[in-house]
Amino acid sequence: MTTHQPLAVGLIGAGRMGSFHAETLAHRLPGVRLAALADPAPGAAQRLGDRLGCPTAYTEIGDLFADPQVDAVVIATPARTHAGLVEAAARAGKAVYCEKPMAVTLSEADRAIAAAREAGVPLQVGFNRRYDTGFRAAHDKIAAGGIGTPQLLRSLTRDPKLHDPAPIPPWTIFLETLIHDFDTLRFLNPGAEPVEVFAWADALVRPDFKDRGLLDTAVVTIRFDNGALATAEANFQAVYGYDVRGEVFGSAGMLTMGDIRRSHLTSYGADGVAADCVTYDQDLFHDAYVAELADFTDSVRTGRAPAVTGEDARAALSIALAAIQSVTTGGPVRVDELKNE
Amino acid sequence: MTTHQPLAVGLIGAGRMGSFHAETLAHRLPGVRLAALADPAPGAAQRLGDRLGCPTAYTEIGDLFADPQVDAVVIATPARTHAGLVEAAARAGKAVYCEKPMAVTLSEADRAIAAAREAGVPLQVGFNRRYDTGFRAAHDKIAAGGIGTPQLLRSLTRDPKLHDPAPIPPWTIFLETLIHDFDTLRFLNPGAEPVEVFAWADALVRPDFKDRGLLDTAVVTIRFDNGALATAEANFQAVYGYDVRGEVFGSAGMLTMGDIRRSHLTSYGADGVAADCVTYDQDLFHDAYVAELADFTDSVRTGRAPAVTGEDARAALSIALAAIQSVTTGGPVRVDELKNE
Amino acid sequence: MTTHQPLAVGLIGAGRMGSFHAETLAHRLPGVRLAALADPAPGAAQRLGDRLGCPTAYTEIGDLFADPQVDAVVIATPARTHAGLVEAAARAGKAVYCEKPMAVTLSEADRAIAAAREAGVPLQVGFNRRYDTGFRAAHDKIAAGGIGTPQLLRSLTRDPKLHDPAPIPPWTIFLETLIHDFDTLRFLNPGAEPVEVFAWADALVRPDFKDRGLLDTAVVTIRFDNGALATAEANFQAVYGYDVRGEVFGSAGMLTMGDIRRSHLTSYGADGVAADCVTYDQDLFHDAYVAELADFTDSVRTGRAPAVTGEDARAALSIALAAIQSVTTGGPVRVDELKNE
Amino acid sequence: MTTHQPLAVGLIGAGRMGSFHAETLAHRLPGVRLAALADPAPGAAQRLGDRLGCPTAYTEIGDLFADPQVDAVVIATPARTHAGLVEAAARAGKAVYCEKPMAVTLSEADRAIAAAREAGVPLQVGFNRRYDTGFRAAHDKIAAGGIGTPQLLRSLTRDPKLHDPAPIPPWTIFLETLIHDFDTLRFLNPGAEPVEVFAWADALVRPDFKDRGLLDTAVVTIRFDNGALATAEANFQAVYGYDVRGEVFGSAGMLTMGDIRRSHLTSYGADGVAADCVTYDQDLFHDAYVAELADFTDSVRTGRAPAVTGEDARAALSIALAAIQSVTTGGPVRVDELKNE
Repeated sequence: MTTHQPLAVGLIGAGRMGSFHAETLAHRLPGVRLAALADPAPGAAQRLGDRLGCPTAYTEIGDLFADPQVDAVVIATPARTHAGLVEAAARAGKAVYCEKPMAVTLSEADRAIAAAREAGVPLQVGFNRRYDTGFRAAHDKIAAGGIGTPQLLRSLTRDPKLHDPAPIPPWTIFLETLIHDFDTLRFLNPGAEPVEVFAWADALVRPDFKDRGLLDTAVVTIRFDNGALATAEANFQAVYGYDVRGEVFGSAGMLTMGDIRRSHLTSYGADGVAADCVTYDQDLFHDAYVAELADFTDSVRTGRAPAVTGEDARAALSIALAAIQSVTTGGPVRVDELKNE
Repeated sequence: MTTHQPLAVGLIGAGRMGSFHAETLAHRLPGVRLAALADPAPGAAQRLGDRLGCPTAYTEIGDLFADPQVDAVVIATPARTHAGLVEAAARAGKAVYCEKPMAVTLSEADRAIAAAREAGVPLQVGFNRRYDTGFRAAHDKIAAGGIGTPQLLRSLTRDPKLHDPAPIPPWTIFLETLIHDFDTLRFLNPGAEPVEVFAWADALVRPDFKDRGLLDTAVVTIRFDNGALATAEANFQAVYGYDVRGEVFGSAGMLTMGDIRRSHLTSYGADGVAADCVTYDQDLFHDAYVAELADFTDSVRTGRAPAVTGEDARAALSIALAAIQSVTTGGPVRVDELKNE
Repeated sequence: MTTHQPLAVGLIGAGRMGSFHAETLAHRLPGVRLAALADPAPGAAQRLGDRLGCPTAYTEIGDLFADPQVDAVVIATPARTHAGLVEAAARAGKAVYCEKPMAVTLSEADRAIAAAREAGVPLQVGFNRRYDTGFRAAHDKIAAGGIGTPQLLRSLTRDPKLHDPAPIPPWTIFLETLIHDFDTLRFLNPGAEPVEVFAWADALVRPDFKDRGLLDTAVVTIRFDNGALATAEANFQAVYGYDVRGEVFGSAGMLTMGDIRRSHLTSYGADGVAADCVTYDQDLFHDAYVAELADFTDSVRTGRAPAVTGEDARAALSIALAAIQSVTTGGPVRVDELKNE
Repeated sequence: MTTHQPLAVGLIGAGRMGSFHAETLAHRLPGVRLAALADPAPGAAQRLGDRLGCPTAYTEIGDLFADPQVDAVVIATPARTHAGLVEAAARAGKAVYCEKPMAVTLSEADRAIAAAREAGVPLQVGFNRRYDTGFRAAHDKIAAGGIGTPQLLRSLTRDPKLHDPAPIPPWTIFLETLIHDFDTLRFLNPGAEPVEVFAWADALVRPDFKDRGLLDTAVVTIRFDNGALATAEANFQAVYGYDVRGEVFGSAGMLTMGDIRRSHLTSYGADGVAADCVTYDQDLFHDAYVAELADFTDSVRTGRAPAVTGEDARAALSIALAAIQSVTTGGPVRVDELKNE
């Protein structure tokens, strides 16, 4: 750390994820300060700012982009607003960290990437699993050849509870949940790219919401250009807690990662052996959420390239869009034949 | 045990699996005796019989069927001979235990089932995983509603070593390896039947054998009529040993099963924590192999129906054939549209 | 197996352990036959023999010793009769397998050992944990220097249920339960011998039986002549099942062994992660019980020395007696100062 | 948080533990600021302060006590200076957090406790394991009766490496290492107190240092007034990493805690299954170290009593002193007969 002037970060979106990131920026990162908050909901930014000692709160997001005190922005708003905000932030000359998914169409992904490139600002995307100790150690070992060539991969996400599904847009399971797994599979198969995707999805948790387009269970298989075959799997209601795991099988070994136990306490009783599970995602990935913002702010300060790029976001989105098209058509979809609409 | 007359069993096929079954019949099952062995290879049955104290050895399989002393037969020959031998054994009035796969086409499966039914003899098929403690406990718990409705299932087989592939017929990975997983998925989703199958397969372990049709890596996804989505996965060379696992996720919980550790010894050294893996399948399923023959011979003696039927074999075969057709056509295949050729 | 004449084994004691051993001799060991049974309880040997197809049953134990058809005897009677029966069997020229403890005083241990030596018959003692896969692999690794010099050891036994304690003699916890752990500690610290012992014991499960001398909970610490410090621990009522574990920490690593899970099935539900425990000791050590008789009968037939000797039994007994003396006196006891009474 | 004025904490001792605590006070605790550092080593406090942005650095510890800006002090100096510094801090009216051991004789423990009581300042002691998720969950479950009455307890500490032993004072293994385990055993046996202690210790890692009084391996057994029997075990060189575990067996179940794995990554290779271990204690207890200072500063601000008291420190010290006396005399030692010297 050569500069004694802390990096001033503005955060957009005072919801659950935004509040957690705001707390990290306010308290957990030396050399960083939470300079401004913005949320269109009346009072939301102000209340969060009061709690965290953040001096400035906006209801107009544009005001935050215009604030000359802000060096970098963290975007934690609803998914469909992300790409436009990335563009606006980049045009305002701010370094950008954007929650996943960075975009929901390829064309808006391309525009966001182009905007950051033209403005010469760093752009990092919130694939937090890349910052989890186990997933990262797996990636490093695979990249170093530790299990030979990957042949079979698996990544899964099971959320602990299906929240009120009314406002959930169609395809959420692919665009917001499995997008993590698609990125994880690319992360764990370094250098390889997806070629073809086949997917099934259904409303098994809440069949009554199927006619509104809510799909809560999905299995996706992906063929990569190095021959590796991968599966990604998601479900919106795991009664035992938040379950995120990965497995990579290669020519020289296998790695498994992910742990749903909350602590290392094990209980042995008349009914058998038992352990607690993790219930909330911020428990499971608490350290990873902090680490990704630490890495982002560090890259901004030191000028090095961010570790998770807009291009990574676009590649994961391609898989999601191919999966959606596969569900719609009932057949496999080649990623290179996706229309860039 | 009300009868003091032991059940006389004849075994066909003195190879690796046949030798193990012969040893079980000779030594491990009270009330059962190994009465005759048959193998067309000169001397093979004789040598095995000498070692196990079996009084009769044939090189003509028909002689074993004609032997009036033989109550029941165990068929452990190469896969493509199974269905015909089941038919012949049934016609000879013997109770029949047949190694998997019982048949490699639907029409020969139908003929084998019909032959047993017409002869009124019991017919059991060698899906040994149904007799493994963990898989069986999982089935029982699922059947009792312990995890609610199954929504996502997984079954995998990874063999420890790719043996000399020269004589391996095409589609072995589906007909002889994954057939176990297809049966396991039906076993773990009780009452449900497969509707549609999508599969990819490749020669990733030995790309040089691909032109001979040898596929060594496969991923299959299956949609069941209760909505559950399943994946089955196989590979012919896991350097860490023989790996067979299952996972069932339901509306009220999840079960995992399968254990690749050879013992409960754990070593902690300067390089970390380590444990031994299982290397040979007869280690991993030793008890299950014995249990399935114990159950078969017990059902023959008591007259109750066998637990794993010819119909089970046909259902698993349907999935395998659909997977093969999916690999050939590149698209998903409905099981009810398979031609009964 | 060069001889075709099976080894004829006579078994004394038709109780729980004796019945299991009888079944092993009758059915599970090729080349071995259960030739005779003896039990002083009227009808006990006869009933067990009928069930197992054993031709001869005695109520006079001496008749079994006098039976010229019997090559070897297995002693599975109450502990306090063991040493005398070993002597009698040896004098009758029979190879002897004796359940633990072989003796309850040093002088009767010495007489038993001397009788076998004078008669030139093999004498093996039933420390079955030496035949458990995990404990044996640990021993082999330690003996090969795999964890350097042992420095800290632990062995524990927790029985699943305190059976009706009325007939339990005082000091049972040391002489019949912890005797296993004392042998295990010697087995896992190869070449070293105990120097000094300190013990506490109490009636924590059933305080109301303390005045009858029943102790149900004990902790013993042992100092070995290679400096290693060991603890042995027992309790008569573990609600979660039968719990036997070991741990050896050395200058170059640590080994843990013992597994209280009944299968590899794991359940994940709303209450967390769960697995089943082992409830009966013959489940936990089923294979080890068979393996020790297989080894004994094999050593008798091949003429090699037995693997677990009378001297091993005496050494474990020394620790038990020192522990009892320590509880009585309240201070540590040197093993070499035990009176050979 | 009702006050907006942050709590000003001064830290004494800029060594390894002190530096970690200083970083926590500077960066990880909202509402807390690192106001001053003191270390007699020339430049040590200044260098640490420069790195952490702490405005004030003293080489005279008394200057820190006299600093009116300092509300509370954290003592992280060598063990033998602790009690005197607690007294001085209390007399200066500062809230006190003291690393373990708070004292090395009972009389100085009593004086430290009395000084805090007379000054009316809170006094908390650094038994960080009480803030580890697993150990705390175990305590809570035991305190709620979840495993019935504790009957057998175990706590162990194995450090990853024997640092240059030259400056290690005799009895370090009891006063500085096992003191954690003694506190843990009290924590896991709520409401019970130790009655009698028996201990063995030796120099097994470095026999060549034994004549200087350095003991590197110890086993201690403790009898509690509720009948529970406990063992504590320590060693100064575990090649596989930093190993801290606990086990409590009670009339209604068992709990185990402690985890030496560094992440949830598991590797399966040709040599078996492997996982990484934890190598440094600040990895293993990182969160617990932060949590204990968070709890201390929170209790100071809210006026509630600290959770780990001077009395707790005295009770653990009693066990350590009894263990030392037991090693010296060779016999068990009653805690209530320790001389208060």
